[in-house]
Amino acid sequence: MLTKNQLKRIISLRQKKYRLTQQLFIAEGPKVIFEFLNSNYELVEIFSTLQHYNQFKAKFNIISDEELHKISLLKTPNKLLAIFKIPKPLKVDASKLILALDKINNPGNLGTIIRLCDWFGVKDLICSNNTVDCYNSKVVQSAMGSHTRVNISYVELECFLEKSSNVIGTFTESKNSIYETELPSSGVIVLGNEANGISSKIASKINIGLTIPRFGTHMNAESLNVANSAAIILSEFKRKSIER
Amino acid sequence: MLTKNQLKRIISLRQKKYRLTQQLFIAEGPKVIFEFLNSNYELVEIFSTLQHYNQFKAKFNIISDEELHKISLLKTPNKLLAIFKIPKPLKVDASKLILALDKINNPGNLGTIIRLCDWFGVKDLICSNNTVDCYNSKVVQSAMGSHTRVNISYVELECFLEKSSNVIGTFTESKNSIYETELPSSGVIVLGNEANGISSKIASKINIGLTIPRFGTHMNAESLNVANSAAIILSEFKRKSIER
Repeated sequence: MLTKNQLKRIISLRQKKYRLTQQLFIAEGPKVIFEFLNSNYELVEIFSTLQHYNQFKAKFNIISDEELHKISLLKTPNKLLAIFKIPKPLKVDASKLILALDKINNPGNLGTIIRLCDWFGVKDLICSNNTVDCYNSKVVQSAMGSHTRVNISYVELECFLEKSSNVIGTFTESKNSIYETELPSSGVIVLGNEANGISSKIASKINIGLTIPRFGTHMNAESLNVANSAAIILSEFKRKSIER
Repeated sequence: MLTKNQLKRIISLRQKKYRLTQQLFIAEGPKVIFEFLNSNYELVEIFSTLQHYNQFKAKFNIISDEELHKISLLKTPNKLLAIFKIPKPLKVDASKLILALDKINNPGNLGTIIRLCDWFGVKDLICSNNTVDCYNSKVVQSAMGSHTRVNISYVELECFLEKSSNVIGTFTESKNSIYETELPSSGVIVLGNEANGISSKIASKINIGLTIPRFGTHMNAESLNVANSAAIILSEFKRKSIER
């Protein structure tokens, strides 16, 4: 049974400002929740329609299907909903390859990029302060637990890049094919906004400009989706790292 | 002004069975619609709230904002909605690299994969008959016009692969890293379903098994999203083709 206050508090976490003030976020479904439970993330409360999840004792709340529908953001709520504390980001390790995002708006794209960092062993993901919040529910669900293995920091990206040495950006018009350019084993790869690419302020900090060659003969081919660009770029950096 | 019959007919095209019987589909927004107009696709009717699109003469219908909201599937309808004829697929060119999909369910994934084929110059995309319809509105919108440059055929995938020579599949457990294996310049690359991968019936037709190596140290890292896998695989095939 949910109290009015619990209901209000859970629903408030759909908004970034309440996530920030309370330093809490929501995860849904057994798969994602168990990834957070098996990590350093701290569980605050857990809600389920199924009694057999009472292993969580004082933190466990049994609720009705109707209540789960009320608090869930999924079309088909998936048995469990949990509230976790937002951890403090760790210090960034500048000796490794880092991915940085310049105003990514789409939660699905950010979630997919976190998953890609996890797959390719990129430990640090840097987000400009105007990138969508990584604890937005859609980001949490689409990253499928990869938050637990990627250190995500929100920063003033311009200042951050000023202090970095190899700053790598991809552009549609660069002359340097990602396949044919020698790539450094450390540095910061910057990915730009879905509609506008890398902003001019950030572009001025980039010292290695790359492009993913277009093989289609029609010049109309739209630019690649940002998550697909991330996949290709990380794949190519990692491929070259095993060649060395 | 929309007649009741027009309204009914447009809304019916949201369903695959009506798209199939009428051989028609819907595209929305100037950008996507102009891609279809500048191609071999045949316009049937076009609807807009703006009089200045009356270049389409007898095919043009001026409608109210309210009517556009009724017929649009976009959260924010984008000025134009058009109905086009579904073209007959062309003959598949087996001498080139082909992408084949085994039961892709998510329209966004299919749309992104069509865009990737366009970018990487893959002319033929083969879909198993149980793959989501490529004229589903969400597919059309996410492919952003790339339908006009990619020949999409729905087939009995098992039979199609029986007649193909190089059948390439990616698996999480294969020993052959995509980076370190010699890749053919022609053949069929098969991508599997989002949740279950390549089905066993289709897997038995594959003679080159590949894997995208995982660089993250945690074995928990979820498999890659199918569109990201497609991006990495096509990038690697095309990279090797320019090395030859």
